[in-house]
Amino acid sequence: MSKAFDFATVTAPDLPPPAVKFGGYPKFNFVGGHNDPDSLPVADLTEAVTAVMKREARSLAMYNSTGPQGYLPLRQFLVKKLKADAGIACTADDVLITSGSLQGMDLVNSLLVGPGDTVIVEEDNYGGTFTKLARIKGKCVGVPLDRDGMRMDALAATLADLKSKGIKPKYIYTIPTVHNPTGTVMPVERRREMIRLAEAYGVPIFEDDCYSDLVFSGERPPAIYALSDWPGVIHIGSFSKSIAPALRIGFVVAPWDAMSRILALKGDAGTPAIEQMALAEFCEKNFDTHVGKLRTALKAKADAMVAALEEHFGTAAEFERPTGGIFIWVKLPEPVDTTKLFQVAAKHGIALNPGPEWSIADGRNKRQMRLCFAYPSKDVIRNGVAALAEVCRTEFGIPERIANVKR
Amino acid sequence: MSKAFDFATVTAPDLPPPAVKFGGYPKFNFVGGHNDPDSLPVADLTEAVTAVMKREARSLAMYNSTGPQGYLPLRQFLVKKLKADAGIACTADDVLITSGSLQGMDLVNSLLVGPGDTVIVEEDNYGGTFTKLARIKGKCVGVPLDRDGMRMDALAATLADLKSKGIKPKYIYTIPTVHNPTGTVMPVERRREMIRLAEAYGVPIFEDDCYSDLVFSGERPPAIYALSDWPGVIHIGSFSKSIAPALRIGFVVAPWDAMSRILALKGDAGTPAIEQMALAEFCEKNFDTHVGKLRTALKAKADAMVAALEEHFGTAAEFERPTGGIFIWVKLPEPVDTTKLFQVAAKHGIALNPGPEWSIADGRNKRQMRLCFAYPSKDVIRNGVAALAEVCRTEFGIPERIANVKR
Repeated sequence: MSKAFDFATVTAPDLPPPAVKFGGYPKFNFVGGHNDPDSLPVADLTEAVTAVMKREARSLAMYNSTGPQGYLPLRQFLVKKLKADAGIACTADDVLITSGSLQGMDLVNSLLVGPGDTVIVEEDNYGGTFTKLARIKGKCVGVPLDRDGMRMDALAATLADLKSKGIKPKYIYTIPTVHNPTGTVMPVERRREMIRLAEAYGVPIFEDDCYSDLVFSGERPPAIYALSDWPGVIHIGSFSKSIAPALRIGFVVAPWDAMSRILALKGDAGTPAIEQMALAEFCEKNFDTHVGKLRTALKAKADAMVAALEEHFGTAAEFERPTGGIFIWVKLPEPVDTTKLFQVAAKHGIALNPGPEWSIADGRNKRQMRLCFAYPSKDVIRNGVAALAEVCRTEFGIPERIANVKR
Repeated sequence: MSKAFDFATVTAPDLPPPAVKFGGYPKFNFVGGHNDPDSLPVADLTEAVTAVMKREARSLAMYNSTGPQGYLPLRQFLVKKLKADAGIACTADDVLITSGSLQGMDLVNSLLVGPGDTVIVEEDNYGGTFTKLARIKGKCVGVPLDRDGMRMDALAATLADLKSKGIKPKYIYTIPTVHNPTGTVMPVERRREMIRLAEAYGVPIFEDDCYSDLVFSGERPPAIYALSDWPGVIHIGSFSKSIAPALRIGFVVAPWDAMSRILALKGDAGTPAIEQMALAEFCEKNFDTHVGKLRTALKAKADAMVAALEEHFGTAAEFERPTGGIFIWVKLPEPVDTTKLFQVAAKHGIALNPGPEWSIADGRNKRQMRLCFAYPSKDVIRNGVAALAEVCRTEFGIPERIANVKR
């Protein structure tokens, strides 16, 4: 005889709504931050996994065999790489391997943000930033961006305003090198100004460099963590965008007084070992070559996306051509509502990120959308954007004409 | 010029104390729940990793390529295995792959336990159970165990007592198949009684079967999840003990109304893929044979541990010979204080778990200690127990005589 029990009657308060059953991925998948499958270094990564398993698989019998900060050779690789690419001078003791940079975000939030605490963020942001902070009852204050990223005049005003209200923000969160979703790269002078302001107000900087390997030119400004001789900076990064997201490997770089507290919060008995070992093995010889090829491939996909938007949306689509990363931030004219567009497009097998989910406040970015271009093939990009333009035209009358529109 | 910033001035409230710098592992390491390195199926696991990378590495370019519940072939393996071993009838939709069973614990706690909520647990327990619940401001009520695990007369009294106080406990957490730390296995009749009580009071059962593959005889009672036709049960398990802890792969089995809410809480963009793929590939052909060999090896180590305790502690060490698992729960006589013993032993390169950390309340289990035997070699077990007896004799005068004591 079948009995009943409703778990909804015993749940903790303030849960997110239940998930819907997974029904597969859409035909035109412009969300999710996935990587380009054709660029995945399958052969070299397989060789690396095999080599390191043959040599060291025995170590899998222990939790954290090289200690709680993660596989030492991977930390040693990161020390070299971060110096060469981002200008960061650190040691393996300053590095913690995490289960994706998402775990890095969770750890920094656990370290610094108590219920009711305020944090400063870029007002257009990764949607997960807002969801994570809402879950821990943190309050976000947003700073506007321009073509060079977060505006320092606005940051200065925000810091002064909060101080006048007796509010001590717990960090300034920034994605300064290929910002999500705007794609901007903050120049050095602004980085120095942010450091000056952070130090003056005693507010730590939380730097998220997870897209920084994907600047197409290969040239990037030094990390804020590198530029600052004031130690109030925590830096996180990831291998999801440079190598592969399903590996779930990221890292935190922090001085010991932050690192020691973060370690005490990382109660997961370690980040998975095979990926750490494989990455250390692969990256030592292959990282730069691989990422060089990846950037070329991503630039070609960005160009395909731009061409498709120009062809099918014409002047209706307003955007900056990406100079790095895996997404484009597009603005459409009135009366387009991208939340509605997202819902209708989903019925046509097209997934996009509506701007309001990438925004600090309700009602902002109602005409913006983020489209990821790394995962879909160029054909899917072309056909998907064409299909999206058709949906948009049917729903909103925008664009007025499709195809054969020259910018 | 070097500047200063003290992160301790900006941390969130109620943090655990900072970690100390990692100084390597002790010579006689009887903690940590590590596995037997000699039993790790290195060749077959390496072959599995290589095969699955060659076939499917491309899928690493996507987060959650087979959906948010994890790699489908691994879930399909678990469906078959759980039916064969634990009697659980479920489908792949009822299974979620997690980053270790520790993440399973965190997810169930997030699902059910709000600040100030009460949960019922075995009064001797995995130390992490208490730390995790303290961190989320949950309150534990402990139920005593005997040689057959949690006592049902005591559980009935606890449930009635809480009800009389208007307290609705959020779950009954049990490790019924090779309990940590007592090693007990709850017989079927008690499992049925627990189900009857849980249903009568409307309190979910949270069953943790992470050691259940390690019953030396290979015979285990059906899981509570299997025995219950009342659906108020969540079951978690792990590959850490059956295969390797550093893989960080566990699982949750739950009905959809719990699973859908758990999925919404698993905000990590997926559990790492290579381990999931490798385990599915390895386990399909090799799981039973491997675990059979592992049980034999662990039994031999348990025997070595028992022999060493008998030889060096004689009648001073009181314990049940393990019938499964990777640890032994030892009681020493007055005036031994195992917290003090732990501190002194650490100076001699011996790590043990002092009973009070494996206990619901301060002051309990002051003469108990848990010793893990899977990881150390038999020589290390023998020499380590001899060294520990010497330390104990010097500190407490117990045991009175060492060596050549026959039980």
